[in-house]
Amino acid sequence: MKTLLDLAKLVNGKVIGDKTMIISGVSEIQNGKESTITFLGNSKYKKYLSSTKASAIIVDDNSLLNDKSGIVHNNPQLAIAKILGEFSPKIDKKTGISKTAYISPNAKIGKNITIGNFSVIEDEVIIGDNTIIGSNTTISNKTSIGNNCNIFSNIHIYNSCTIGNNCIIHSGTIIGSDGFGYVTENGDHHKIPQNGNVIIGDKVEIGANSAIDRGTIGDTVLGDQCKLDNHVHLAHNVHLGKGCILTAAVTIAGSVNVGEFCIFAGHVGVAPHVTIGAHSILAAKTGVTKSLSGGKVYAGMPAREIREQHKRDALYSEVIKMKKQLMSLKK
Amino acid sequence: MKTLLDLAKLVNGKVIGDKTMIISGVSEIQNGKESTITFLGNSKYKKYLSSTKASAIIVDDNSLLNDKSGIVHNNPQLAIAKILGEFSPKIDKKTGISKTAYISPNAKIGKNITIGNFSVIEDEVIIGDNTIIGSNTTISNKTSIGNNCNIFSNIHIYNSCTIGNNCIIHSGTIIGSDGFGYVTENGDHHKIPQNGNVIIGDKVEIGANSAIDRGTIGDTVLGDQCKLDNHVHLAHNVHLGKGCILTAAVTIAGSVNVGEFCIFAGHVGVAPHVTIGAHSILAAKTGVTKSLSGGKVYAGMPAREIREQHKRDALYSEVIKMKKQLMSLKK
Amino acid sequence: MKTLLDLAKLVNGKVIGDKTMIISGVSEIQNGKESTITFLGNSKYKKYLSSTKASAIIVDDNSLLNDKSGIVHNNPQLAIAKILGEFSPKIDKKTGISKTAYISPNAKIGKNITIGNFSVIEDEVIIGDNTIIGSNTTISNKTSIGNNCNIFSNIHIYNSCTIGNNCIIHSGTIIGSDGFGYVTENGDHHKIPQNGNVIIGDKVEIGANSAIDRGTIGDTVLGDQCKLDNHVHLAHNVHLGKGCILTAAVTIAGSVNVGEFCIFAGHVGVAPHVTIGAHSILAAKTGVTKSLSGGKVYAGMPAREIREQHKRDALYSEVIKMKKQLMSLKK
Repeated sequence: MKTLLDLAKLVNGKVIGDKTMIISGVSEIQNGKESTITFLGNSKYKKYLSSTKASAIIVDDNSLLNDKSGIVHNNPQLAIAKILGEFSPKIDKKTGISKTAYISPNAKIGKNITIGNFSVIEDEVIIGDNTIIGSNTTISNKTSIGNNCNIFSNIHIYNSCTIGNNCIIHSGTIIGSDGFGYVTENGDHHKIPQNGNVIIGDKVEIGANSAIDRGTIGDTVLGDQCKLDNHVHLAHNVHLGKGCILTAAVTIAGSVNVGEFCIFAGHVGVAPHVTIGAHSILAAKTGVTKSLSGGKVYAGMPAREIREQHKRDALYSEVIKMKKQLMSLKK
Repeated sequence: MKTLLDLAKLVNGKVIGDKTMIISGVSEIQNGKESTITFLGNSKYKKYLSSTKASAIIVDDNSLLNDKSGIVHNNPQLAIAKILGEFSPKIDKKTGISKTAYISPNAKIGKNITIGNFSVIEDEVIIGDNTIIGSNTTISNKTSIGNNCNIFSNIHIYNSCTIGNNCIIHSGTIIGSDGFGYVTENGDHHKIPQNGNVIIGDKVEIGANSAIDRGTIGDTVLGDQCKLDNHVHLAHNVHLGKGCILTAAVTIAGSVNVGEFCIFAGHVGVAPHVTIGAHSILAAKTGVTKSLSGGKVYAGMPAREIREQHKRDALYSEVIKMKKQLMSLKK
Repeated sequence: MKTLLDLAKLVNGKVIGDKTMIISGVSEIQNGKESTITFLGNSKYKKYLSSTKASAIIVDDNSLLNDKSGIVHNNPQLAIAKILGEFSPKIDKKTGISKTAYISPNAKIGKNITIGNFSVIEDEVIIGDNTIIGSNTTISNKTSIGNNCNIFSNIHIYNSCTIGNNCIIHSGTIIGSDGFGYVTENGDHHKIPQNGNVIIGDKVEIGANSAIDRGTIGDTVLGDQCKLDNHVHLAHNVHLGKGCILTAAVTIAGSVNVGEFCIFAGHVGVAPHVTIGAHSILAAKTGVTKSLSGGKVYAGMPAREIREQHKRDALYSEVIKMKKQLMSLKK
């Protein structure tokens, strides 16, 4: 049982109002429930501050609370993330290796491992300590997975790939499939063998039904702390720097280099062989056709700096104005 | 064996021509086959009316038949849908639970259930009567599935989700994966725990390789009769009203509210925290960045009413005209 | 052990420099390693020609080599593809049928077949000689797969589909799921039964997590040598001519006809019931809304010939110029 004060201490915030109030969970501000705590993380939801039925609110400014109890924290989203961890439902996870799983006698399995039903661990696979593998997942020959990973269900990691420590891979994701490469001669598409691997750093999370191809020559590489959403496609030899965030349905073509801490919104596409500088931000549906320097915000197809794109979007009203001027000149 | 009259009765249509004609199947109008029935459902195919080798045609206007036999019905597509059901191939489906499936002793399984090979039903899962589950599918702890559902193969439904009655979920789809949420502090992306669930109504169909994330706080909710195509992505806390139709590769970001009976064409993307009014229609590749009022047709990136978008698409010819006027003025 | 001369003979190229040099592998030009061979396949990488540490280079022009050893070949990419095949890592693949697989007694299995753990071969399935099937893959009733195919893991091929010879299907891909079709009447979406099948020719390769729907009436058809990347969606009754190349996240709606040897770049979408002529090339993110004649390059949404699209992209600078002229005229 947690009091408001307990939670304020947990997040290192300042408690306001009834410190001894019992908090039994977290609710959304627009759908607040009694005895729960909520937060204001987006100004769109400010209108719910006074009417929410949540008993306490995390805000970044004391004055937003009015007469309500709550916690003041400079980053309410970070505070609520910690509190959500406190209230996460406890799933009864069986530990241990299911009797129905197939584990090659040549695989090296760490301590305190969980492997679900009908999963397949092939020859010379290495799995680190405390790693959890779901059901119906296949880890192919010579692939290595680090410690404390959570590899969910219906996943295939092809042979000879490397996954770091503390990674999460959601169900349905495929890692190490062949890169997409052919040479066409006299109407025949000859397959280019894909001899490289996939190397994934530490603390990487990949959403559901994503697909990461292996390299052709050399490897496909994801730096530490990269976070990929659902349906993300990385082609052969893509290199992602540390801490990149790729939202749903991002599609990156072969041999693209992405600098560290880039953010790609949904449906972004990148053409092959380009370089994107560190700390770039790409708006939704941006199509990158040439290399981009880092530290800027881009939008549009082809990608331009967003101010430039906004000018282009405003062209319509500009032309309407000019049309009127032209008409009056003609008179 | 069905006569043309039998089929006309089945669909409640008016038979024209040879009532006793035996119909043995359905064919496409452009690829019509003798002793089959076809239909005119799209005016693009009108050119095949006279030349089709199909023996009978369903039309919405008597005069289209000329000398051919057929059925007049006010909705030929609905009529052919019913007739296709009559001629669906009978698949030899084994009923019963495969000996190779893993069923937790704590799961509650209804009557007349089919569960395929190597599927996994975890603790406290509830499955209603007459539901069919394919092979290599995993249903995790405490998830509940209604009656008369058809859950195909290589599917993972995470823990604590709810699926209604009469739902169809195609192979490769993932339901209940974590929402995509991080708080970044000093170069570290902290994961926001995803404590909510997914709640899916009745008569929902979801295509292959789609991905529906669980809620962060509160749930991701799909109303009754929602129909989702392949590769659809719904982020955490998306709410779809009743009867929404989402075509392939639609991507909806977190906390989006969609009113009932909206239609989204392919590759539509929606930014987080927006509301889309009921009965909205979004053209292919539309990118929604702000809330939209209902009952209208939208297109473009950013989304605008389609008439407005068409004006913008026509800007090019407008400017060419103005250029000529400007040239003549200069002279 | 291969010498440079051995490799030159293998690819039918002209050796330059030290013929007896031992080549132990292939490296990327920008990341060249001693005792390996690399190639110049894209002029973007010309800058690495002099500095690469690779011991030999494949080029299409003698003069590019300067003092380096290498091979001259009119198609360096084709040459490196052959050499990569020579150096492909040998994966220890067990042949034979895993004891944990489920094979229906009514299935017809060819010679020298490999079937992985927990895969399911249902009734009346036919599998040709030398075909490899991975783990956790399900082949449903009456589906037929040709000789020398490589069907990876976590795949579901629905009933009654046909896969040709020498095909490769990557993990997570779904073939034969229902087409997306409903008829709406009084607020109810009635499912249109999907009675057709999927027919796939010879030498077809399909990437990871793609989805190919079965036909409604008639079939979905992929011609010989079609190559599909990851996350490709083909709706019911799509027909692809021979040798089409569809890059990642291409989405083709129902009843679309694509002529032979078309190339679709990433995120291309095609509306239903259109025809695309043979040898068309569609730039990334193109949205096709009307039929297109063959042999041309298209771009934009809606799709236009790329020259036309470039004119439209240049409209902005055109208008800025006109604005200045207008201003000076007003004076």
